[in-house]
Amino acid sequence: MAHSPELPLGMLAARFAKEFEARVFEALTRAGYPDLRVRHSVLLGSLDRTGLRLTRLAAQAGMTPQAMGELVDDLERGGYLERRPDPADRRARLIVATPKGERALADCLRIVAEVEASYASALGTERYAAAQGALGDLLER
Amino acid sequence: MAHSPELPLGMLAARFAKEFEARVFEALTRAGYPDLRVRHSVLLGSLDRTGLRLTRLAAQAGMTPQAMGELVDDLERGGYLERRPDPADRRARLIVATPKGERALADCLRIVAEVEASYASALGTERYAAAQGALGDLLER
Repeated sequence: MAHSPELPLGMLAARFAKEFEARVFEALTRAGYPDLRVRHSVLLGSLDRTGLRLTRLAAQAGMTPQAMGELVDDLERGGYLERRPDPADRRARLIVATPKGERALADCLRIVAEVEASYASALGTERYAAAQGALGDLLER
Repeated sequence: MAHSPELPLGMLAARFAKEFEARVFEALTRAGYPDLRVRHSVLLGSLDRTGLRLTRLAAQAGMTPQAMGELVDDLERGGYLERRPDPADRRARLIVATPKGERALADCLRIVAEVEASYASALGTERYAAAQGALGDLLER
Protein backbone atom coordinates (compact mmCIF):
# COMPACT_ATOMS: atom_id res chain seq x y z
CA MET A 1 0.00 0.00 0.00
CA ALA A 2 2.01 2.99 -1.26
CA HIS A 3 1.61 6.36 0.40
CA SER A 4 2.41 9.87 -0.73
CA PRO A 5 3.87 12.14 1.94
CA GLU A 6 1.04 14.63 1.40
CA LEU A 7 -1.74 12.25 2.41
CA PRO A 8 -3.89 13.71 5.20
CA LEU A 9 -3.22 12.30 8.67
CA GLY A 10 -6.87 11.24 8.99
CA MET A 11 -6.64 9.11 5.84
CA LEU A 12 -3.27 7.65 6.82
CA ALA A 13 -4.76 6.71 10.18
CA ALA A 14 -7.74 5.02 8.50
CA ARG A 15 -5.46 2.97 6.22
CA PHE A 16 -3.11 2.14 9.03
CA ALA A 17 -5.97 1.08 11.32
CA LYS A 18 -7.17 -1.30 8.57
CA GLU A 19 -3.67 -2.74 8.21
CA PHE A 20 -3.43 -3.21 11.99
CA GLU A 21 -6.83 -4.89 12.20
CA ALA A 22 -6.05 -7.17 9.25
CA ARG A 23 -2.80 -8.30 10.89
CA VAL A 24 -4.42 -8.88 14.28
CA PHE A 25 -7.39 -10.82 12.89
CA GLU A 26 -5.23 -12.91 10.52
CA ALA A 27 -3.15 -13.88 13.56
CA LEU A 28 -6.33 -14.65 15.54
CA THR A 29 -7.51 -16.92 12.72
CA ARG A 30 -4.16 -18.76 12.79
CA ALA A 31 -4.46 -18.99 16.59
CA GLY A 32 -7.77 -20.86 16.23
CA TYR A 33 -10.37 -18.06 16.39
CA PRO A 34 -11.48 -17.62 12.75
CA ASP A 35 -14.93 -16.36 13.79
CA LEU A 36 -13.72 -13.31 15.74
CA ARG A 37 -14.33 -9.97 14.00
CA VAL A 38 -13.33 -6.39 14.79
CA ARG A 39 -16.85 -5.66 16.06
CA HIS A 40 -16.47 -8.35 18.76
CA SER A 41 -13.46 -6.63 20.39
CA VAL A 42 -15.60 -4.36 22.54
CA LEU A 43 -17.43 -7.35 24.05
CA LEU A 44 -14.51 -9.79 24.30
CA GLY A 45 -12.50 -7.20 26.24
CA SER A 46 -15.35 -6.71 28.77
CA LEU A 47 -16.03 -10.36 29.61
CA ASP A 48 -15.00 -11.90 32.90
CA ARG A 49 -15.80 -14.98 35.01
CA THR A 50 -18.08 -13.10 37.40
CA GLY A 51 -20.37 -12.00 34.61
CA LEU A 52 -22.22 -8.81 33.75
CA ARG A 53 -25.76 -8.11 32.62
CA LEU A 54 -26.46 -7.29 29.00
CA THR A 55 -27.70 -3.80 29.86
CA ARG A 56 -24.46 -3.05 31.71
CA LEU A 57 -22.29 -4.33 28.84
CA ALA A 58 -24.31 -2.25 26.38
CA ALA A 59 -24.04 0.92 28.50
CA GLN A 60 -20.27 0.48 28.93
CA ALA A 61 -19.86 0.21 25.16
CA GLY A 62 -22.29 3.03 24.35
CA MET A 63 -24.45 0.60 22.35
CA THR A 64 -28.12 -0.32 22.45
CA PRO A 65 -28.94 -3.54 24.34
CA GLN A 66 -30.19 -4.93 21.02
CA ALA A 67 -26.88 -4.29 19.21
CA MET A 68 -24.91 -5.72 22.14
CA GLY A 69 -27.29 -8.69 22.17
CA GLU A 70 -26.24 -9.54 18.62
CA LEU A 71 -22.57 -9.56 19.64
CA VAL A 72 -23.43 -11.74 22.64
CA ASP A 73 -25.28 -14.17 20.33
CA ASP A 74 -22.21 -14.32 18.03
CA LEU A 75 -19.76 -15.04 20.83
CA GLU A 76 -22.12 -17.48 22.55
CA ARG A 77 -22.38 -19.42 19.28
CA GLY A 78 -18.56 -19.51 19.11
CA GLY A 79 -18.29 -20.80 22.69
CA TYR A 80 -16.58 -17.64 24.01
CA LEU A 81 -19.25 -16.86 26.61
CA GLU A 82 -22.38 -18.27 28.19
CA ARG A 83 -25.56 -16.83 29.65
CA ARG A 84 -26.25 -17.90 33.24
CA PRO A 85 -29.00 -17.01 35.70
CA ASP A 86 -27.95 -14.11 37.95
CA PRO A 87 -27.74 -15.47 41.55
CA ALA A 88 -28.79 -11.99 42.78
CA ASP A 89 -31.96 -11.95 40.64
CA ARG A 90 -33.20 -15.19 39.13
CA ARG A 91 -35.14 -13.35 36.41
CA ALA A 92 -31.93 -11.71 35.15
CA ARG A 93 -29.05 -13.32 33.25
CA LEU A 94 -25.33 -12.80 33.46
CA ILE A 95 -22.97 -12.92 30.49
CA VAL A 96 -19.93 -14.92 31.62
CA ALA A 97 -16.64 -15.68 29.85
CA THR A 98 -15.95 -19.37 29.17
CA PRO A 99 -12.39 -20.72 29.43
CA LYS A 100 -12.22 -20.41 25.62
CA GLY A 101 -13.28 -16.75 25.89
CA GLU A 102 -10.58 -16.08 28.47
CA ARG A 103 -7.96 -17.79 26.30
CA ALA A 104 -9.09 -15.81 23.25
CA LEU A 105 -8.78 -12.51 25.10
CA ALA A 106 -5.31 -13.42 26.39
CA ASP A 107 -4.22 -14.49 22.88
CA CYS A 108 -5.67 -11.29 21.44
CA LEU A 109 -3.71 -9.12 23.88
CA ARG A 110 -0.54 -11.08 23.12
CA ILE A 111 -1.04 -10.68 19.36
CA VAL A 112 -1.70 -6.94 19.63
CA ALA A 113 1.47 -6.60 21.71
CA GLU A 114 3.45 -8.49 19.05
CA VAL A 115 2.08 -6.36 16.21
CA GLU A 116 2.82 -3.19 18.17
CA ALA A 117 6.35 -4.41 18.91
CA SER A 118 6.90 -4.83 15.17
CA TYR A 119 5.79 -1.21 14.61
CA ALA A 120 8.06 0.06 17.37
CA SER A 121 10.93 -1.94 15.92
CA ALA A 122 10.29 -0.60 12.39
CA LEU A 123 10.10 3.04 13.50
CA GLY A 124 12.41 3.03 16.50
CA THR A 125 10.93 3.55 19.94
CA GLU A 126 11.20 7.33 19.76
CA ARG A 127 9.23 7.82 16.54
CA TYR A 128 6.75 5.16 17.66
CA ALA A 129 6.13 6.97 20.96
CA ALA A 130 5.89 10.31 19.15
CA ALA A 131 3.19 8.98 16.82
CA GLN A 132 1.34 7.47 19.78
CA GLY A 133 1.55 10.77 21.66
CA ALA A 134 0.37 12.81 18.68
CA LEU A 135 -2.71 10.68 18.00
CA GLY A 136 -3.45 10.45 21.72
CA ASP A 137 -3.28 14.24 22.09
CA LEU A 138 -5.56 14.80 19.08
CA LEU A 139 -8.10 12.38 20.55
CA GLU A 140 -7.96 14.06 23.95
CA ARG A 141 -8.76 17.57 22.71
CA MET B 1 -12.68 10.47 24.21
CA ALA B 2 -10.00 9.96 26.87
CA HIS B 3 -6.84 8.08 25.99
CA SER B 4 -4.29 6.34 28.10
CA PRO B 5 -0.70 6.77 26.95
CA GLU B 6 -0.29 2.98 26.74
CA LEU B 7 -2.98 2.43 24.09
CA PRO B 8 -1.60 0.56 21.07
CA LEU B 9 -0.88 2.73 18.03
CA GLY B 10 -3.24 0.59 15.92
CA MET B 11 -6.15 1.27 18.26
CA LEU B 12 -5.33 4.97 18.54
CA ALA B 13 -5.29 5.13 14.74
CA ALA B 14 -8.68 3.42 14.53
CA ARG B 15 -10.23 5.85 17.03
CA PHE B 16 -8.59 8.83 15.39
CA ALA B 17 -9.74 7.75 11.93
CA LYS B 18 -13.32 7.57 13.24
CA GLU B 19 -13.00 11.06 14.73
CA PHE B 20 -11.62 12.38 11.44
CA GLU B 21 -14.39 10.76 9.39
CA ALA B 22 -17.08 12.01 11.76
CA ARG B 23 -15.79 15.59 11.47
CA VAL B 24 -15.49 15.43 7.68
CA PHE B 25 -18.95 13.93 7.14
CA GLU B 26 -20.64 16.28 9.64
CA ALA B 27 -19.14 19.19 7.67
CA LEU B 28 -20.29 17.60 4.39
CA THR B 29 -23.82 17.35 5.80
CA ARG B 30 -23.72 21.04 6.77
CA ALA B 31 -22.38 21.83 3.27
CA GLY B 32 -25.47 20.24 1.70
CA TYR B 33 -24.40 16.63 1.11
CA PRO B 34 -26.15 14.68 3.88
CA ASP B 35 -26.29 11.50 1.78
CA LEU B 36 -22.51 11.11 1.34
CA ARG B 37 -20.95 8.30 3.39
CA VAL B 38 -17.37 7.17 3.99
CA ARG B 39 -17.82 4.30 1.53
CA HIS B 40 -18.57 6.77 -1.29
CA SER B 41 -15.16 8.49 -1.01
CA VAL B 42 -13.40 6.00 -3.26
CA LEU B 43 -15.89 6.65 -6.07
CA LEU B 44 -16.37 10.40 -5.61
CA GLY B 45 -12.60 10.92 -5.82
CA SER B 46 -12.37 9.00 -9.11
CA LEU B 47 -15.16 10.78 -11.02
CA ASP B 48 -14.45 13.24 -13.79
CA ARG B 49 -16.27 14.88 -16.71
CA THR B 50 -14.77 12.54 -19.30
CA GLY B 51 -16.17 9.48 -17.63
CA LEU B 52 -14.92 5.98 -16.90
CA ARG B 53 -16.46 2.56 -17.29
CA LEU B 54 -17.72 0.70 -14.25
CA THR B 55 -15.19 -2.11 -14.72
CA ARG B 56 -12.33 0.42 -14.74
CA LEU B 57 -13.62 2.20 -11.61
CA ALA B 58 -14.00 -1.16 -9.86
CA ALA B 59 -10.48 -2.30 -10.83
CA GLN B 60 -8.94 1.00 -9.66
CA ALA B 61 -10.62 0.63 -6.28
CA GLY B 62 -9.88 -3.10 -5.97
CA MET B 63 -13.61 -3.85 -5.73
CA THR B 64 -15.93 -6.17 -7.61
CA PRO B 65 -17.97 -4.50 -10.37
CA GLN B 66 -21.07 -5.41 -8.37
CA ALA B 67 -19.89 -3.63 -5.22
CA MET B 68 -18.82 -0.59 -7.24
CA GLY B 69 -22.18 -0.69 -9.03
CA GLU B 70 -23.94 -0.20 -5.70
CA LEU B 71 -21.86 2.91 -4.98
CA VAL B 72 -22.63 4.19 -8.49
CA ASP B 73 -26.36 3.64 -7.86
CA ASP B 74 -26.12 5.60 -4.59
CA LEU B 75 -24.34 8.57 -6.13
CA GLU B 76 -26.54 8.54 -9.21
CA ARG B 77 -29.61 8.71 -6.94
CA GLY B 78 -28.03 11.73 -5.19
CA GLY B 79 -27.33 13.49 -8.49
CA TYR B 80 -23.54 13.30 -8.13
CA LEU B 81 -22.99 11.35 -11.36
CA GLU B 82 -24.78 10.10 -14.42
CA ARG B 83 -24.45 7.10 -16.71
CA ARG B 84 -24.01 8.02 -20.39
CA PRO B 85 -23.48 5.92 -23.52
CA ASP B 86 -19.77 5.58 -24.32
CA PRO B 87 -19.12 7.36 -27.68
CA ALA B 88 -16.36 4.80 -28.36
CA ASP B 89 -18.72 1.81 -27.88
CA ARG B 90 -22.47 2.42 -27.88
CA ARG B 91 -23.12 -0.81 -25.94
CA ALA B 92 -20.95 0.44 -23.05
CA ARG B 93 -21.72 3.17 -20.54
CA LEU B 94 -19.54 5.82 -18.97
CA ILE B 95 -19.88 7.04 -15.39
CA VAL B 96 -19.57 10.85 -15.54
CA ALA B 97 -19.47 13.46 -12.74
CA THR B 98 -22.32 15.98 -12.75
CA PRO B 99 -21.66 19.61 -11.75
CA LYS B 100 -23.01 18.69 -8.29
CA GLY B 101 -20.54 15.79 -8.13
CA GLU B 102 -17.66 18.12 -9.03
CA ARG B 103 -18.76 20.64 -6.39
CA ALA B 104 -19.08 17.91 -3.78
CA LEU B 105 -15.55 16.66 -4.47
CA ALA B 106 -14.13 20.20 -4.28
CA ASP B 107 -16.01 20.84 -1.01
CA CYS B 108 -14.81 17.53 0.36
CA LEU B 109 -11.17 18.34 -0.41
CA ARG B 110 -11.59 21.81 1.18
CA ILE B 111 -13.16 20.30 4.32
CA VAL B 112 -10.42 17.67 4.66
CA ALA B 113 -7.81 20.44 4.32
CA GLU B 114 -9.56 22.45 7.06
CA VAL B 115 -9.75 19.49 9.43
CA GLU B 116 -6.09 18.66 8.77
CA ALA B 117 -5.12 22.30 9.39
CA SER B 118 -6.83 22.10 12.78
CA TYR B 119 -4.75 19.00 13.61
CA ALA B 120 -1.53 20.68 12.50
CA SER B 121 -2.42 23.73 14.55
CA ALA B 122 -3.20 21.62 17.66
CA LEU B 123 0.04 19.61 17.44
CA GLY B 124 2.37 22.12 15.83
CA THR B 125 3.61 21.46 12.31
CA GLU B 126 6.60 19.42 13.47
CA ARG B 127 4.68 16.86 15.53
CA TYR B 128 1.97 16.75 12.85
CA ALA B 129 4.53 15.97 10.14
CA ALA B 130 6.24 13.41 12.39
CA ALA B 131 2.96 11.54 12.92
CA GLN B 132 2.24 11.68 9.19
CA GLY B 133 5.73 10.36 8.41
CA ALA B 134 5.49 7.55 10.97
CA LEU B 135 2.14 6.23 9.75
CA GLY B 136 3.24 6.64 6.13
CA ASP B 137 6.42 4.67 6.77
CA LEU B 138 4.53 1.87 8.53
CA LEU B 139 2.12 1.65 5.57
CA GLU B 140 4.98 1.59 3.06
CA ARG B 141 6.79 -1.36 4.64
